[in-house]
Formats: sequence, structure tokens, C-alpha cells
Amino acid sequence: MTLEAQILSQLKKARAASHSLALCSTERKNATLLSLAKALRANASAILEANRKDLEVAKSSGRAGAFLERLTLTDARIAAMAKSVEEVAALPDPVGEIMESWSRPNGLQIQKMRVPLGVIAIIYESRPNVTIDAGVLTFKSGSAVVLRGGKEALAANTLLARMLARSLEDSGIDPAAVTFIDTPDRDAIQILKRHPEEIDLIIPRGGGSLKEALAGSAVPLMPHFDGLCHTFVDRAADLKMAEEICFNAKVSRPSVCNAMENLLVHREVAAKFLPAMAKRFIAAGVELRGDEATCAIIPAIKHATDEDWDTEYLDLILSIKIVDSIDEAIAFIRRHGSGLADAIVTQDASAAARFEREVDSATVYINASTRFTDGFEFGFGAETGISTNRLHARGPMGLRELTTYKYVVRGEGQVRS
Amino acid sequence: MTLEAQILSQLKKARAASHSLALCSTERKNATLLSLAKALRANASAILEANRKDLEVAKSSGRAGAFLERLTLTDARIAAMAKSVEEVAALPDPVGEIMESWSRPNGLQIQKMRVPLGVIAIIYESRPNVTIDAGVLTFKSGSAVVLRGGKEALAANTLLARMLARSLEDSGIDPAAVTFIDTPDRDAIQILKRHPEEIDLIIPRGGGSLKEALAGSAVPLMPHFDGLCHTFVDRAADLKMAEEICFNAKVSRPSVCNAMENLLVHREVAAKFLPAMAKRFIAAGVELRGDEATCAIIPAIKHATDEDWDTEYLDLILSIKIVDSIDEAIAFIRRHGSGLADAIVTQDASAAARFEREVDSATVYINASTRFTDGFEFGFGAETGISTNRLHARGPMGLRELTTYKYVVRGEGQVRS
Repeated sequence: MTLEAQILSQLKKARAASHSLALCSTERKNATLLSLAKALRANASAILEANRKDLEVAKSSGRAGAFLERLTLTDARIAAMAKSVEEVAALPDPVGEIMESWSRPNGLQIQKMRVPLGVIAIIYESRPNVTIDAGVLTFKSGSAVVLRGGKEALAANTLLARMLARSLEDSGIDPAAVTFIDTPDRDAIQILKRHPEEIDLIIPRGGGSLKEALAGSAVPLMPHFDGLCHTFVDRAADLKMAEEICFNAKVSRPSVCNAMENLLVHREVAAKFLPAMAKRFIAAGVELRGDEATCAIIPAIKHATDEDWDTEYLDLILSIKIVDSIDEAIAFIRRHGSGLADAIVTQDASAAARFEREVDSATVYINASTRFTDGFEFGFGAETGISTNRLHARGPMGLRELTTYKYVVRGEGQVRS
Repeated sequence: MTLEAQILSQLKKARAASHSLALCSTERKNATLLSLAKALRANASAILEANRKDLEVAKSSGRAGAFLERLTLTDARIAAMAKSVEEVAALPDPVGEIMESWSRPNGLQIQKMRVPLGVIAIIYESRPNVTIDAGVLTFKSGSAVVLRGGKEALAANTLLARMLARSLEDSGIDPAAVTFIDTPDRDAIQILKRHPEEIDLIIPRGGGSLKEALAGSAVPLMPHFDGLCHTFVDRAADLKMAEEICFNAKVSRPSVCNAMENLLVHREVAAKFLPAMAKRFIAAGVELRGDEATCAIIPAIKHATDEDWDTEYLDLILSIKIVDSIDEAIAFIRRHGSGLADAIVTQDASAAARFEREVDSATVYINASTRFTDGFEFGFGAETGISTNRLHARGPMGLRELTTYKYVVRGEGQVRS
């Protein structure tokens, strides 16, 4: 049996399971999740043992540092996984929600009803907890999930996926609703992307090489690859507030997509704002790179290159540019931003209004940190990624963003004239 | 200049125009539309003259019948176009609509705001009125549009697109917001589908050869190619109502995607229902094809082949099958339906509830004709197609379905802990 035939057979089972899962009651889904949480806690030592095997292989192949850190499970991480499964059980079920309803002059009653998307494939890298986190969110949203994790976490992923499938089976749900692709062969991704008839959506969670591997996908993608976020300190900014927001946006967690990469400062306040701000950044270990005007104010820092303005550092590095106007700031963000999250700090209502209207990013902030672009911070109770797509879902994705809808139309014999 | 360079240059201008159009006021958009409606009426004779040229070419290349009918413009059709432009002006502007808003415990105010999609390409066939209809709907939705019509309507399309662009220009709007691809070269479609950085969405309006031409598109598609609709006459149906609904679904306009192609009848009522129904269909010129059980009741008709159940006739042909249960009907629809529109006729509330829950089509009807799957019939005031996609928009698409959203988050200095 070829790899393609083998995966296709798995996909067909996942598709079949999606039909019954779509009709599964909220109670049964939640009971399944609660029993999974229990099983995770009860089997913590087996999970750690599988993870140990993955870590040994990774170390012997020369992996180190942050990579191993992401790959490592601990008792605390397993407890956190179990807790997050219970939290998903507690979330409202999006399936069957009536989004809108209205009646027509001819008496037809129309309801727009939320329904599962179908089959969702999630392709992720080395964090084994994603197997559980992404698996249970998709499950709760009523869609079958096809999980494809990084090969470095294969032992732990295989075990976690098996536990998830076992919980479904114990609840009388077709376990193919959680399908795990257990081959480390990278061809698997090529096969997944060729089967739009079996997969409705691929959610990739990974970097540039995954993006390349998915180019030309026949299955729609919900990408969230890039986050190149800006903060614009307007001339009418409360400069103390601006300092707190900028510091938080850059320093609180520099490795994530909603961290600030480019700081824009209005020329009228630059000389007043930048020295104290720069001092604080430098004290926190941030490497600053400035345009000429910035370097004239803070001479100690590097000059930014053209490339810097388009670089998502994901690190303690920040590029700073002084602009003459809000127009220049907005144009700069359009040109260099990734459309994920951009902020203005201003006390001027008309500047705020222009910024919110003219900056076309998934999340636009007035006087707050870009770091809030996150499903939990938005109150979604979960996060299944942050979309930089313009279609279907944009920005933080919760359970509802994993669904679609249908119209239910009730009549009493109406026909069209 | 190669065709690719030429089209790419047009696309870049359309992208630039989309940014300013997105900020255009409702008043200015509506004034533009009203002046276009006037221009259409004032220039009717020039439009008819261009159409005459198209018709001559089409006739001399052997086109005939329904094709020429679709291609033909008349004074009445031009008046209808102008009227529909005025109707679009009267529709509410979707841009800027606050879809939801809430506040977070930390005081952040979050608004989900409807915004334009960006650049939408519409690829259509021989009806020249689509240039105006699709052009003005996209314009009102705030997106730039790239129009690519069938080569047989080139003269009329070119003139209509020019009139549309002129109306924009006269209102001080960048005319590249309505970009017309005027080459008859089919390579143009291949070029459009390669540029996701310039086009956010392609809406194809056409048949199988267009579907094939768009395979492997790097730009997301919103297809609405197929409509294979079912009506299921349940054992608890009001048979007189069922007869009216089935007759309407098949006969009122057989050439459209929401017409019924397969009729399913519960065995318990088949002998009572089918003879009168068949008589009425046959009198209306409908060719009936039945499974064995149906042919036993109406011996005069053809036997349906396996292929019949999967064929969208778009014609006065209907396949009829007798089923033993609602389960069989639902399974049959899952297997053979296109997910566009399916109906049940029943007085049994539990059968209706099962059907609406288990049939996963864009529009599911209880006791009404599938022919209501239409933006106008749904009260959208417009129709930009009927999507069989599961992502972004499903079923009848109005103005709102051409948009996306962003989140506007207002704070007073909040930072993330």
C-alpha cells in the first residue's frame, strides 16, 4: 500500500466520522472531554516516558536550546493540558447556534444556523501539547480533525492522539473523528494538500518551511504565519502611556506574533519621548535599530537597514522610525505590516478615528498593547490560531471560527412565482 | 509587454484603488451609482450597437439558440440594468457596520467591524449585464473589482465597463477600482489565478470549462458551479402541498441551479402520490426517469441509470426514486446532492427536525420549494452568486458576503500582564 493510499484511506474514515460527530450532542462531547482530562492525569508517567524517547532522539540528532524546551513535557505541562481540556468542555457548544433569523413577506421563516465545518487538518511542529489542544477544540466544534505533528514529537503525539481516540471510542463516538497521521515522511503534507474532497480546511501552525510545503494547496488554508506589528506614537500621545504600551508590546513576550517589531514616532514628540523609552528598552536588553532621525536623538544605537522594516524578529530587537504625520505612519504600516495587529497611542480623537478606519489590520488598537491579539484576551475562551487571512476568519480564532453555517427555511407549502 | 506584465500592471492599479475605495463614503458611492444608471439610460443606443457587433460575430461563428438569447441586449434589458443599479444604491452600505461589540474585564472595548474584502475578480461568461450587475455590487461593498467577461460579449462589456469607470472618475474615485480585462485570450484566467498578492478572491460564474481552467488557483475561489437539488416527499407529507412544491421546484425555471433534479418519495405514499404528480409533470413536458419501484407505479417512463442520480440536467428532466425511510433519503442526499438546496415535505415535526439537522446543505427547506435559494428571495436585496463553498460564505451571497471584518480595540493604556 502506498503512503498516498494509506493516508487517503485514513481521510475517508475521518470524513465518514465527521458526519456522525456533527450530530453528536453537547453532553456527549463534554463527557468525552472530561474523561480525556482524567486519562491525561492518570497516564502522566506514560506520557512523560514517551516524551523522554522523543527528547533522546532529538538530542542525539543535535537539537538544543529553545527547540528542546518546546518539545519537553513536564508534570506541570500535562496538568495544564488536562485543565485546558476541562475548560474546553465548559465552553458553549457553537454547533446549532442560531446566528440570525427572520421571516419573509411570503411567510417563509429563515434561520442562519451554525454547523461544523467538516474535516479540518492541523499541521503543527514540535509542541506535543498541540495534539491535545487543537484536537479537542476541533472536536468540540463538531468537525473531524486530522492531526499531523512534527516528527520530533512522534512518540508523545502518537500516545496523546491514541488517548484522545480512546476517549471518543469509550463514549460511543467514531474514533476516526480524531485521525493522527503517524508517518514522519514529509510527503504526508503533500498528500494532505491534494485532497480537497476529504479535507475542508488546513490550519498550518509553523514557520516558513511549512508555508513553502503548502504552496499550491488544493485545500483552502487558514494561515497565520506572520506577525509584523507596529505601534505609532502620535504627537497627541500621552507619552507615559505610550512608554508603557510600547514596552509591553515589545518586551512582555518577544517570541510571539503579536509582539511589536516596528515603532513609529511622530516627529513632534520624538525628542521628548525617545530618550527615556530607549533607556528603558536598552535596560531590558532590547537591541534598537533606528532611522537617521532616531539615531540623531539616540546616537548609541544601530542604523536600521531597509530589510529591518520588513523583518519579524521574534526577539529582543526593535526598529524605530520617526514620521512626519499620521498619513506617513498609516502608509508605512500598509507597506510593511503583516495585517495582524497595529496600534496608535493618541489622545486626539480624530487621529484615533483615522487610524482605526484606515489601518486595515485584523486587530487595530487605540491606546492599548498589540499583545492583546489572542483568543483568550478577546474572551473567546480558547484559541485555535490567529488568522492573517481575509476570508472566513480574521484575527484571533475561537471555536466559532472553526464552524460554518447553513440556512434552514421553514414554510407551509410556499412556491416561487 | 507580455500579457502577464500587462495584466499584472492592471492588477496593481486595482489594488491601489482598493485602498481609497475602502474609505469612500456611502454618499459618494451612491451618487456614483445613480449617475451610472442615468448614463446607461442615456447611452442605450450605443450599448445596443456594441451588442449588435457581438451578436454578428457570434452568429458568424455558428452560435445559436439559448447562447444568442443570453448574449442579446434589448431596451428592456438595459432599462432593467439601470434599475438594478438604482436598487443597489438604495441598499444599506455594509462597510463600517458593527457586527458585534463587547468589553473585557480589563476595560478594553472590542468592536467587530465589517470592512471591504479588497480586490475581487469576477470571471463570467456571455451575459453582458453581469459587467454592470457584478461590477456595482462589488463597488458598493467597497472592494475593487477585476472583471473578465466572455469573449463573445467583448464589445458590449468593454463599453459597459468604460461607462462604469467613467462614473467613478466623475465622482473623484480612482477608476481602477473597476478594472476590465479586455483581452479575449484565455491565458488571462491563468494569469489571474497566479496572483494572490493582488487578488483576494475569485468568483467564477460559469460552467465546467471555467472550473477546469481555475483548478490549482493560488487565489481563493468562491465557486458556485453545481446545484443538484432534491425534494423528499415524506410519508407524513401533505400530498397536495408536495405536488405543488415539487412541480414548482422542477418546472418554474429548470435551467437554474436551485431547480430540483432528483425526487425522493417515501414508499408508504408513493402509490398514492406519484400517479397524479407524474401526470402533471408529463403534461408540462418533463421527461421522467425512475428507479424500478417508480417504474412499477408509472410504467410509461424511462429507467434511471446510475449516472442519472448524479446529473444536473438544468432541463425538463427529473429522476425519481422511492425510498424506504427518511434515513435512506438523507443518506441518498449526502451521496448525490451538491449541498446547495434540498427540501423535505412533511407534517411530521420529528421528521422535519431530523432532516434540517442531518442534511448538510447550504439551504435546507421544510415544506417549501428549493427555488427560494436566491439572494433576492432571502431578502438580501441583491445577489452576487450562490456559494457551494463551506468557507467564508455559504448559500445566497448578498453584499455582506463580499466583505470581511476587523477588530477595533479601544483602551486607556492597557498592557498585557
